[in-house]
Amino acid sequence: MAKTKAPEASSGRFAYDGLDRVIHEKARLGVLTSLVAHPKGLLFGDLKQLCKLTDGNLSRHLQVLEEAGLVGIEKSFAHNRPQTVCRITAEGRKRYLRYLDVLEQVVRDASAAAKGEVSPGGQRGLAPA
Amino acid sequence: MAKTKAPEASSGRFAYDGLDRVIHEKARLGVLTSLVAHPKGLLFGDLKQLCKLTDGNLSRHLQVLEEAGLVGIEKSFAHNRPQTVCRITAEGRKRYLRYLDVLEQVVRDASAAAKGEVSPGGQRGLAPA
Repeated sequence: MAKTKAPEASSGRFAYDGLDRVIHEKARLGVLTSLVAHPKGLLFGDLKQLCKLTDGNLSRHLQVLEEAGLVGIEKSFAHNRPQTVCRITAEGRKRYLRYLDVLEQVVRDASAAAKGEVSPGGQRGLAPA
Repeated sequence: MAKTKAPEASSGRFAYDGLDRVIHEKARLGVLTSLVAHPKGLLFGDLKQLCKLTDGNLSRHLQVLEEAGLVGIEKSFAHNRPQTVCRITAEGRKRYLRYLDVLEQVVRDASAAAKGEVSPGGQRGLAPA
């Protein structure tokens, strides 16, 4: 019997193109989730604590997010002391929600895979030669 | 009224320590999900197609996964042609499931955050000074 080729439908079945790397990075995922949960913004110090990041690390990731247009950073003074407020932008929220859709698909695939269910892509495993 | 400090309980609320970086990387997440779904193993070529990766990229990620003990790679001959079979190890499956637990928590947090629900950590947003 001729060996069947993996169906074309399965091509890229687990590629997860929508997992935006700017958002997917572990620390940035925490930062964005914090900011989505606090749409009025968070102080740099509170964000640092919520995400257990160092000053340097948080600054670096905020810079990436700001350059990508996902986060806005506002420096001001309160009680004569400088403070930095970080907020998610409208674009950031939109992209975060799109990312979340893909992440939910990953979790569904992964749960199905771990339970040994046939995944919807219909791809085969290793058949005897 | 004295300004209240963010409760200690909220420290690290969005740190997601359990998001194992070896597994979380986008391409490797696809590779591992494919392999969990095919516990008997997948041929290199099929894995490449499922994850839409180049030969070089897939090789590089498989090496990281093999060095971490998550994936086993077996080179052999079939019909006088070399073939490479990739399988998830028992340790790999265990770590993948642990990762999945954290990922599900992220999705729950993110959904709650996006809907504007108060998240269970009880952290505050920006309060008027």
